[in-house]
Amino acid sequence: MKRSLGSQTIIYPLPAFLVGTYDTEGKANIMTAAWGGVCCSEPPLVAVSVRKERWTCEAIVKRGAFTLSIPSADMAAQTDFAGIASGRNTDKFKELGLTPVKSALVDAPYVGECRLVLELTLHTSLDLGSHVQFIGKVEDVKADEDCLDDKGKPVRKKIDPLLYDIGAREYCRAGQTMGKAFAGGKIYWKKTDE
Amino acid sequence: MKRSLGSQTIIYPLPAFLVGTYDTEGKANIMTAAWGGVCCSEPPLVAVSVRKERWTCEAIVKRGAFTLSIPSADMAAQTDFAGIASGRNTDKFKELGLTPVKSALVDAPYVGECRLVLELTLHTSLDLGSHVQFIGKVEDVKADEDCLDDKGKPVRKKIDPLLYDIGAREYCRAGQTMGKAFAGGKIYWKKTDE
Repeated sequence: MKRSLGSQTIIYPLPAFLVGTYDTEGKANIMTAAWGGVCCSEPPLVAVSVRKERWTCEAIVKRGAFTLSIPSADMAAQTDFAGIASGRNTDKFKELGLTPVKSALVDAPYVGECRLVLELTLHTSLDLGSHVQFIGKVEDVKADEDCLDDKGKPVRKKIDPLLYDIGAREYCRAGQTMGKAFAGGKIYWKKTDE
Repeated sequence: MKRSLGSQTIIYPLPAFLVGTYDTEGKANIMTAAWGGVCCSEPPLVAVSVRKERWTCEAIVKRGAFTLSIPSADMAAQTDFAGIASGRNTDKFKELGLTPVKSALVDAPYVGECRLVLELTLHTSLDLGSHVQFIGKVEDVKADEDCLDDKGKPVRKKIDPLLYDIGAREYCRAGQTMGKAFAGGKIYWKKTDE
């Protein structure tokens, strides 16, 4: 039996992205965002939504660029702080002991300590109400060497990405593998062929 | 030391949503989508991107509605099949032994066996290239009674949502809790006050 929870944005999983920008004065800033994800393959586009009143919103518009740094599970408290403090009056990189690395490709900094980062140029802005959806074109993805397998693919357990659980308002990590994609479902093909 | 992986959509975490629609003939269909997430709070909007050639794409446009059913971790093989088969020539609900439940609120079916479902009306369509991003307004969220705590909040471990790992092309579940949101970060406030 299902119960109605009303019109709200409860969904699983949610990311905990650190959105990196330079503000109008050139100060590096990060903001935690759980509203986002991939939205196109060709071109490679990723979306992140930011509340209009956030410092990051103006920075993305002015600079036409942002980064997404994927925090690891052991960065939960730092990620939480980056979501509740504002770049208007706080140097979050400094307070958190994190390193802003100037991207060579886009006009935005990423978090040096994060094991996987995306560098994006602004593709489209969409005013949706409380939030502006910023769609960025992925110019590059960078990963720590020791998080890649021998074929150069990122290894989830080494990246150990942080997730946000909106129901419990807590952070968690990814867990147990449940099967291969484009493979596990083939058991149902056999049925179709019978 | 970071290595460049090029311009691609590698990100963590990714969801494994089952997008439910009625096609033009009224047949219930589901398609697995990993490109999606929340994009606005007021109004409550959730986005999912679908490749233009998918059967689901036309269905969403024609019906102006869709659902997102969150598969549980034990539905990895079913979810995989719903991503590789097409509703054009396959009755995926039937092949997978899943129950299409007609939404009373929107013109789309959801998966009865999924513990959390969202019912959405089409708000905005955005042609981005290979994919169309469909932004839906959440009309209701429904959850199985036994997945809610005593305050009516969804419990992650009971919903046990399935995630998609794009690096390894495999499915996984969510794991260990890493701290409370809007709380754990406060240790860094103290520093600021000193």
